[in-house]
Amino acid sequence: MKLEHIGIAVKSLGVSDELFAKLLGRESYKKESVEREGVVTSFYAAGESKIELLEASKEDSPISKFIEKKGEGIHHLAFGVENILHEVDRLKREGFEFISEEPKEGADNKLIVFLHPKCTNGVLIELCQEKQ
Amino acid sequence: MKLEHIGIAVKSLGVSDELFAKLLGRESYKKESVEREGVVTSFYAAGESKIELLEASKEDSPISKFIEKKGEGIHHLAFGVENILHEVDRLKREGFEFISEEPKEGADNKLIVFLHPKCTNGVLIELCQEKQ
Repeated sequence: MKLEHIGIAVKSLGVSDELFAKLLGRESYKKESVEREGVVTSFYAAGESKIELLEASKEDSPISKFIEKKGEGIHHLAFGVENILHEVDRLKREGFEFISEEPKEGADNKLIVFLHPKCTNGVLIELCQEKQ
Repeated sequence: MKLEHIGIAVKSLGVSDELFAKLLGRESYKKESVEREGVVTSFYAAGESKIELLEASKEDSPISKFIEKKGEGIHHLAFGVENILHEVDRLKREGFEFISEEPKEGADNKLIVFLHPKCTNGVLIELCQEKQ
């Protein structure tokens, strides 16, 4: 498992894209809307990993709810895996629970699942696999 | 800048080391106490990046305060840089503020500084440079 990306919930991509471009000394290399999830994403390279800024694109987006409850900040960590079904199976046998076990389509050409943060020290963890 | 590590505040390294070893499918490769900061750390490889679990080793540790306020979870992101003084200087000119501008010794043979989260979307960001 490698650290594939870190998702950061932001109120405004306009404001935060400017901030992160200055911070990282480089521009966002991709913007992508994931309508089913109600988010617009903006990606930055950071070595082998990426920073993914997440702005809500509808009122009941998980990102709106997160910001309402906790404010802007780190939303999730994502680990890249070779075979997501194999990893879900391995982690279930280790006693981990998932928000939903069925991989779904995420941004950046990925299949994704989320572990339930109650079993991962309060950290929302995504597993992601490159789509074939 | 590459994503060097992610710091996760935990109540008990005993509990969380077991959890993260299962999650990542590998053991912690190093434990280190940083007395001045009041933390004990435990490191996991995750591709080019690392996961650093942080347990408070004294009552007024920043980690105790963090957990009291927000619960267990992601505490900071750290970006590795070649020349920390150069980066502090560059970011100050870009308008960023630091908790303290003077690099200090952190875990894992690093010199570190923290940006003030009020100017980084609520995310506590560390810059770190390998000590010569």
